[in-house]
Order: sequence, then C-alpha cells, then structure tokens
Amino acid sequence: MAPFRTTFIVRFGDVDSAGIVYYPRYPHYFHIGMERFFQEALGIDYADLVAGQQFGLPIVRLEIDFRSPLRYGDRVEMEISIGRIGTTSVEWFYTLRREADGEIVASARTVTVATDLAALEKLEVPDWLRTALEGR
Amino acid sequence: MAPFRTTFIVRFGDVDSAGIVYYPRYPHYFHIGMERFFQEALGIDYADLVAGQQFGLPIVRLEIDFRSPLRYGDRVEMEISIGRIGTTSVEWFYTLRREADGEIVASARTVTVATDLAALEKLEVPDWLRTALEGR
Amino acid sequence: MAPFRTTFIVRFGDVDSAGIVYYPRYPHYFHIGMERFFQEALGIDYADLVAGQQFGLPIVRLEIDFRSPLRYGDRVEMEISIGRIGTTSVEWFYTLRREADGEIVASARTVTVATDLAALEKLEVPDWLRTALEGR
Amino acid sequence: MAPFRTTFIVRFGDVDSAGIVYYPRYPHYFHIGMERFFQEALGIDYADLVAGQQFGLPIVRLEIDFRSPLRYGDRVEMEISIGRIGTTSVEWFYTLRREADGEIVASARTVTVATDLAALEKLEVPDWLRTALEGR
Repeated sequence: MAPFRTTFIVRFGDVDSAGIVYYPRYPHYFHIGMERFFQEALGIDYADLVAGQQFGLPIVRLEIDFRSPLRYGDRVEMEISIGRIGTTSVEWFYTLRREADGEIVASARTVTVATDLAALEKLEVPDWLRTALEGR
Repeated sequence: MAPFRTTFIVRFGDVDSAGIVYYPRYPHYFHIGMERFFQEALGIDYADLVAGQQFGLPIVRLEIDFRSPLRYGDRVEMEISIGRIGTTSVEWFYTLRREADGEIVASARTVTVATDLAALEKLEVPDWLRTALEGR
Repeated sequence: MAPFRTTFIVRFGDVDSAGIVYYPRYPHYFHIGMERFFQEALGIDYADLVAGQQFGLPIVRLEIDFRSPLRYGDRVEMEISIGRIGTTSVEWFYTLRREADGEIVASARTVTVATDLAALEKLEVPDWLRTALEGR
Repeated sequence: MAPFRTTFIVRFGDVDSAGIVYYPRYPHYFHIGMERFFQEALGIDYADLVAGQQFGLPIVRLEIDFRSPLRYGDRVEMEISIGRIGTTSVEWFYTLRREADGEIVASARTVTVATDLAALEKLEVPDWLRTALEGR
C-alpha cells in the first residue's frame, strides 16, 4: 500500500549553533510522525494505547543517514512505511524530503518492540496491530 | 543563609535561529538547578520524592526577566534562593550570571505547590520540607 | 479584531516524570504559536525575517500562570492576541484551553523587542509590522 | 588509550509518557558527551571551534542500540572512544552504563564529517584534530 505522508516545518528552536537542525531533533520528528501515523493512517490514538492500555512500542534500534542539512523554515515531507513485522517487533522506515527541491535529506530505520509498559516486558505484536499495519 | 549556587555551560543544541539561547531553555535550566538544589543543598533526591513518594512541586507561576542574551559556550552561574513558604506553596528566585563578565543575564521567580502526584491534589508543605527549606 | 487561534496536540515526549507536560514545553508551544501567527494571520514567514532580514522579536519578559495540568494526547487550543505596541516592544497574550472540556489550562504574557539580530540591538518596531499587528 | 568517561543524571524532563527516557534524548546526551570530550580530553572548546573558526563535525550516520530503559534519577556513565579517522570523517563509539548495576543500557556509533560551517562544505580532517584524536 501507499506509504503514509505527513508534513512538518522546521521551527525556530530546532536548530543548533551551526545554524542547521540539531540532530537529536530528527528522532523527535520521527516520533511525532509515528504518532500521526497511528492517528491518521490507522485511526488509533497512540496516547490512548499508552495511557489507557499501558501498551507501547519502545525503540530498540535506530539508524539514521543524514544526507543534507535542514534549516529554519524548511518544509519537510516525512514518508513512513512499515517493514518486517516479527513476533514481537515492528520495523519502520522514515524518509524526509525537503519540499522546496524534493531532495531526500535524511532516511532512517527503526525497530520497535511491543511492550507492556506497566511491567516493561516484551509482548507478541497483538493481532489488531498486526492486521492494522499489514493493511498499510 | 547563603543562596545555593551551581554552574552550567550553554550547549550546542541550546540556541535558536537567532544564535542565542532559545528562551524555553531557561525554565529547563531552572528545573535542573532545582534538582541540583534538592540533591546538593538539602541532601534530598527529587527523583526519589517523585517516583518513590509521588510527591512533587509543580509550578503555578513563572516570571522571567531576560536582560542579556546567552550564547553557545557561555558558562553561567545560577543562584537559587527560597522566598515565601506558604501553607501549600514555595516561592523560588533564580538569578543567572554570565561568568565571563559577571553580568546578570536573567532573573526569575516561580511559585510551586506541594502536590500529591498520584491524585494531582494540593498538599500542605510537609514539615520535613519546610524545615529543610527554612534552614537554607 | 478576533484573536488568532491555533491547535496543537500534547506529544509523547512532552511530559515529565510526574506524567504531565513539563513546564518548559509551554514557552516552546507559545513560540510555535507565534510562528504560526506570523504565517497564518499576517502572511509573513518569520523564518524569512530571521534568516533573510536578520530581524526578530527576542523576549524580555515572560509570565505564565499554570492553572491545570496537561497530559499526553490532550488537544489544546491556543489563542494569541496582541497587547500594547510600544516604540520598540510588542506585548503578547496567550491562552491555552483544553479542547475536551474548554477549560483554560494556562495563560501567559510576553514582551518582545524588535531587534537587529546581526548586531543584537534594539530597533523601533518597523511600520510594516506595526500596521500588520494593529490590523489584528 | 583509555576511553573518555563522563557521568550524567537523567533529569525530570527527560522521560516520556511511558515513564522512561524519551529516545531522542539519547543523541542529545551523546552530543553533550562529545562537547565534554573536546573540553576535558582534548583541551579544545568546541564552542570556540564552531563560533570562532566556523569548524564543526556534523553527523552523517547515527546507529543506536537501546538495551535497557533509563528512568528519572538514574546516574549514567558515558564512555566515548574514537574509531576510524578517514580523510574527512571521524567515527565515534558511545556506551552508556547505568551506575547502579553497571549494566550497558545503550551503545551507539556515529560518523561525523569535518565541515566548514560557513559554506557547509566537507573538509579534510585537520592535522591538529587528527593528532589530538589519535593521541586518545
């Protein structure tokens, strides 16, 4: 299926002393993208999962390739797609494109693990989530 | 008694697109200062209070005067003193001085309220805290 | 004129160890609100001002009243209105309302100063900005 | 040579809605660690490099393995060592250990590139930096 796309704007406080986006802001963008993906693509409120069901997807692996710097005011399209869904894990791919020139400025891969947040213990990916993600 | 003093360094990611410290970083500095005050001046681990006893001091009022901008690499001395201790509230004063020239770059006043974090309900300032703070 | 309104969602990483929004996130929300105000209400890209014209509105005074905590997933309406426009300063008022119950959760007042960001020197509020703000 | 070690404490605002450190805080910890490494291990002020000489080491690749969650109040030892120094790149390894139990909670590898920050163009790793890093 088509990957999920969402847009954000680089904000005044996102940059660093070199005048480009501070790199820890990228995984923050990815997490906000994942929250929007749950809401807009799956119709699931990730806040309800976390607070209501004590269920979440903490990260165990993060890889980012930074190809071109982002600057204040850049509009960026984030594309999110789902990779391998394992017994307990979900793999995610993120691609960031600067809207002005269409250039890919960063790409990332994360692996997250289905987790009981109360006990902080691994769970099997629940059927409702597997079905929702495979439908993407 | 003497006010509590602690020092921090403005970090690479603390600035904004104008090249000076992004102003929401100031209250973050104050909070870290308060955590150090509890640890170093009172011998109390604020993390234990919050996590162990579900006790904390959420803020209800914040006032900051920004007098001179801070830049990446600036060493800053933070002075913390306690103001009025009410039935449920504690007033704090923060002063930031740039070490290079001794200039006061910002000053702040906060009011925090003794709170049961599980119920998010106001409490009277406990005696052990009142005693510890008055001893300062 | 009608105040400017914009909406945001409290994100997963916005909370603190007490499970409510970490208070330094509030001024960050206000700044993003101000950036949207420039774009959407005035048709001015604040990033262009800052990067292109080295013009900005650094803050000199911040006051926040925190009335009710915000939690992960809360949808919040921010209302922004302009107060007194002085020779060099602009006063702003921010009101945050939780959408679920319409409750005002925080209100704030800031004073910002028209500034040449290259020299970090005060300027008179330029006519184009005064006109744009007074039209609000 | 011995790797560089520095210690930090997980702060009140570092956690997320699951009650563990929000993962974008890890690369922020790494950057602060790198700033301390320059200061304390090499005797070089990274702020002077960036602001004074317009020289820096932006990241092009980040890999993190998250093994065990961090919580508010945890004291963490960060170990930093230098990997391959290429023509224009420097490879870094970061290991985070929870002090309470000595457990490795995260490890990371980054690749940074010597960069003229004014032009945002790649440079050869300067001799003074190569010498300083190889001496580690």
